[in-house]
Amino acid sequence: MSTPVEYIQKHQETFKEELFDLLRIPSISADPNHKQDVRRAAEFVAGQLEKIGLNNVSIEETDGHPIVLGEHLEAGPDKPTVLIYGHYDVQPPDPLDEWKTPPFEPTVRDGKIYARGASDDKGQSYTHIKAIESFLKTGTELPVNVKFIIEGEEEIGSPSLVPFLAANKDRLACDMVLVSDTAMFAKDTPSITYGLRGLMYLEVEVVGPNRDLHSGVYGGGVQNPANALCEMIAKLKDEKGVIQIPGFYDKVRPLSEQEREAYAALPFDQEVYNKTLDINEEFGEDGYSTLERVSGRPSLDVNGIWGGYQGEGAKTVLPAKAFAKLSARLVPDQEPKEIYKLIESYLHDVKPPGVRVTVKEHHGGYPVLVDLDFYGLKAAAAAFQEIYGKEVLFAREGGSIPIVADFAKTLNATTILMGLGLNSDSIHSPNEHFHLKDFERGMKSSARFFELLGDYVE
Amino acid sequence: MSTPVEYIQKHQETFKEELFDLLRIPSISADPNHKQDVRRAAEFVAGQLEKIGLNNVSIEETDGHPIVLGEHLEAGPDKPTVLIYGHYDVQPPDPLDEWKTPPFEPTVRDGKIYARGASDDKGQSYTHIKAIESFLKTGTELPVNVKFIIEGEEEIGSPSLVPFLAANKDRLACDMVLVSDTAMFAKDTPSITYGLRGLMYLEVEVVGPNRDLHSGVYGGGVQNPANALCEMIAKLKDEKGVIQIPGFYDKVRPLSEQEREAYAALPFDQEVYNKTLDINEEFGEDGYSTLERVSGRPSLDVNGIWGGYQGEGAKTVLPAKAFAKLSARLVPDQEPKEIYKLIESYLHDVKPPGVRVTVKEHHGGYPVLVDLDFYGLKAAAAAFQEIYGKEVLFAREGGSIPIVADFAKTLNATTILMGLGLNSDSIHSPNEHFHLKDFERGMKSSARFFELLGDYVE
Repeated sequence: MSTPVEYIQKHQETFKEELFDLLRIPSISADPNHKQDVRRAAEFVAGQLEKIGLNNVSIEETDGHPIVLGEHLEAGPDKPTVLIYGHYDVQPPDPLDEWKTPPFEPTVRDGKIYARGASDDKGQSYTHIKAIESFLKTGTELPVNVKFIIEGEEEIGSPSLVPFLAANKDRLACDMVLVSDTAMFAKDTPSITYGLRGLMYLEVEVVGPNRDLHSGVYGGGVQNPANALCEMIAKLKDEKGVIQIPGFYDKVRPLSEQEREAYAALPFDQEVYNKTLDINEEFGEDGYSTLERVSGRPSLDVNGIWGGYQGEGAKTVLPAKAFAKLSARLVPDQEPKEIYKLIESYLHDVKPPGVRVTVKEHHGGYPVLVDLDFYGLKAAAAAFQEIYGKEVLFAREGGSIPIVADFAKTLNATTILMGLGLNSDSIHSPNEHFHLKDFERGMKSSARFFELLGDYVE
Repeated sequence: MSTPVEYIQKHQETFKEELFDLLRIPSISADPNHKQDVRRAAEFVAGQLEKIGLNNVSIEETDGHPIVLGEHLEAGPDKPTVLIYGHYDVQPPDPLDEWKTPPFEPTVRDGKIYARGASDDKGQSYTHIKAIESFLKTGTELPVNVKFIIEGEEEIGSPSLVPFLAANKDRLACDMVLVSDTAMFAKDTPSITYGLRGLMYLEVEVVGPNRDLHSGVYGGGVQNPANALCEMIAKLKDEKGVIQIPGFYDKVRPLSEQEREAYAALPFDQEVYNKTLDINEEFGEDGYSTLERVSGRPSLDVNGIWGGYQGEGAKTVLPAKAFAKLSARLVPDQEPKEIYKLIESYLHDVKPPGVRVTVKEHHGGYPVLVDLDFYGLKAAAAAFQEIYGKEVLFAREGGSIPIVADFAKTLNATTILMGLGLNSDSIHSPNEHFHLKDFERGMKSSARFFELLGDYVE
């Protein structure tokens, strides 16, 4: 009888061919013309879950595309339950003419699978299906309970997922969520994302006179809303990049010495970073490194600004209004609503005379930070280290993955972000690919994770 | 034998009918379909100049619409020469359905002539033709030499006028230029504009990374060009509205006590001003009144600003670039080129780290200030005062009239802005009109100006 990892090694070619079948389905969730293709992909995934031996496999209808469920609860109620999340829908493939081989005809070149969805997220989520298969087909005891939830709307913002979670709390109850939908820190560098920033997005409108004015007749005699808006935005931060809004940093969990050492140990070259972005010097909150700034510290940025004349040449107008979209990236334990109120109130406080200010809240999202001592995280790291033969990096990411906060809020479950892709995989771009070696190591790492998880349970 | 003023009084009805003939010609310079109408208007004006007895009347061809000339130099070379400027072209009449009576069918209602061009500038410039007629037809000695230059491209920016002035310096040589193409300060309030502000217009581009970035992945780690631009703009003025650019005020002629008293005497109601603009409070350079700020002091404003996402909802992007159009209104003796260089250099000085800044110069224009002791101005004021029976107000205007600087530069001549219209005349708008009483008082004031000018010559 072979072990799960041996089983995976032996069936690699078959698994690749199966994945190719899934990759051939153009399950573009954003395109109504592909509605039936999205359903075909759901059916394919459900068929796989049935085939490997899961119970209660179902295709759950939603207002949008279906959600596929399946479970294996033989370990029993005293054992932890892992909810495996993934998505079978993909981004549109445009621009088509930049693809070297067609997006829905998977092709291997230089050890990489080229296809839309190869990495994001058909390829990555498929590794876990095959990992569970490697237990069930070898008769190896699965030391934990597993549930699958594979959705078809991730690329359009998961509109049905949150209500589905809320409506199926008991059915989806779990101790942790395993997600492979992110990237490793670098090639051949197993890494686990243990923190995500939250978001607070708002819009500010500054209104001056009731119409655009002639800058000759009125210039100097009335407050200019565009100038006023600039002054307000300039007061958000000082010259050292420190946010000046009272209370903004109050709930920020400071980076521990241990964390800062971990940040310093991450492979990062500021010179290459600057060169890649074509900037001549770095800038950010005083006292922190770039990696700390973009993931361990909150930020506050203008996302858009406009007012007055934007066309060719010169128009001598004083704009009646000026607008900006601003957003803050948040870290634990900042709360989006609280931060919104602080910024809103500050904008009113620093408003110069002669204009009226309106602030409007857009969406927000909570930051996430997983305790590095969580046993699930330790098991994932041990599995990664064994399969890749390398020390595992723990990193926080600057972006937000809203579902992670949703899993925490609705299911009270910690999410383990076990990224198997690479930032260079061209997800959302032409020529998306997934390294065959990462597909293989992903399946094996997943299998080892489930084996080791039994040992790590506290 | 009647005096010029008596002659005007007697022929009012005829003069009105003549003006109506001119107003019936839709001489819309901006509309190529009206090219022949513009020429007809030129021919009408030339015919008038011939009819009243001027010499060397001609229709001068240009690359665009023609310029009409005529002169009466009998006073002799030791007497001053007045160049009378006006324009016979008009703005397009749109939106047509807002006109109570058709724009090219002049109609009198409530003592006002309604027609496109009634005030701007057919009606106003016609007063001077009739004033000169009132001398030549009554045998009254005209104590000065006069030349007429009536163009047909004022409403499209006078592209042919400047080269024409340069090419005809000797023919147009004069001691002063008389222009009635502005407004009186208020109804029944004769006023002379003795100052105009200049202009310096530029565009600034702030460039950060080589592409728009994801605000989650990069937020806090790179300088944001939109934030940087706001900081730079915020540094242009302090909280009291005082421009912070070193050297900006160096060449500004301070307002004299006499001027400030004149400003204070002008009819102006801040409350009405705020209400009209729907602003809750005034704002401008500390230490100056609103009227001083908008005409006697320089200003610096954002005319347009843009960068990043301006659409609906939220896009979490860090813009790669941000832009602003800025312009300064200048007062004597500020020089547009010098001011451009000061602002350009300041913008580079206050540029925050991590971005590149490019500044581009648009057009500029010189400010103008006529010496209040200039004899021509005194004669105009005396004429105005006599006809209107009211103290004449002297006011500076905040806008620019480029031809005034051109007359100064090319012909070395001072311009007297003897506005006969009102700001409420709806010029450039539907239902443009000119008060019959102002038409009449305009002709008489002009006639008296020429009579008095002889006495005021120094």
